[in-house]
Amino acid sequence: MTREPLGVRPLSRSESLRLLGSVSLGRIAFTHNAVPVIRPVNHLLDGGNIIVRTHHGSMLTPVVRDGAAVAYEADEIDPHRHVGWSVIVTGRVGPVTSPDDIARFKERLHSWVEGEKDFIIRIEPAFVTGLRLVSPSEGPG
Amino acid sequence: MTREPLGVRPLSRSESLRLLGSVSLGRIAFTHNAVPVIRPVNHLLDGGNIIVRTHHGSMLTPVVRDGAAVAYEADEIDPHRHVGWSVIVTGRVGPVTSPDDIARFKERLHSWVEGEKDFIIRIEPAFVTGLRLVSPSEGPG
Repeated sequence: MTREPLGVRPLSRSESLRLLGSVSLGRIAFTHNAVPVIRPVNHLLDGGNIIVRTHHGSMLTPVVRDGAAVAYEADEIDPHRHVGWSVIVTGRVGPVTSPDDIARFKERLHSWVEGEKDFIIRIEPAFVTGLRLVSPSEGPG
Repeated sequence: MTREPLGVRPLSRSESLRLLGSVSLGRIAFTHNAVPVIRPVNHLLDGGNIIVRTHHGSMLTPVVRDGAAVAYEADEIDPHRHVGWSVIVTGRVGPVTSPDDIARFKERLHSWVEGEKDFIIRIEPAFVTGLRLVSPSEGPG
């Protein structure tokens, strides 16, 4: 397929986080035993942080225990016109420990797939990169 | 949003790679200076390998030079019904060096965004994991 390549417009941090919060599916990337791992998950945004449910004993557990860095990505890109946006976040991940927060997130965030997901984690965005893909006629913005 | 959690059906390697080849957008995850990185990219499948275009001097360059492991993910998941599929590949990445292959991939694979993308890379899937999210009524499969 040959088409005019799209322009890329950077998005502000606040606009990027707003877009991230407008969708519920993203992908978390982390390093496990020196190998990069990527997993699709659903999320919610809370106070600028990304909240995800997982289960104890998952590959994420040691990452969370170590407070290591993870990357998180979400996008909405039209597969035909290719226009849309993508947001990438990098930050440290930690467990949600406050019983109030745990209760609140269990109420608001439900895993899409079966199985217990009693481990709630929070990614604090240190770096946020967002971009919008626009058709060439829309100019560089 | 509360709904019945979905069932998860594992997919075979061949079915997973077929689905991966049926879409053009995925996300590559790798480690750069000990930090996980994730990027949306477009791809094609060639002989069971994933082909991606990037540019020399990108964060992927040292990863490719080292023949390091990367993870690649693509999915088609309905944001409302949540049903769909996800495929995750882990494998080493290397440069495409054959002039014939380079010419062939430049013809078939066009970056969606502006800017020179003259560096063509190949991920050889070592591990392929595919799953299909199905509504509970469809059973565990």
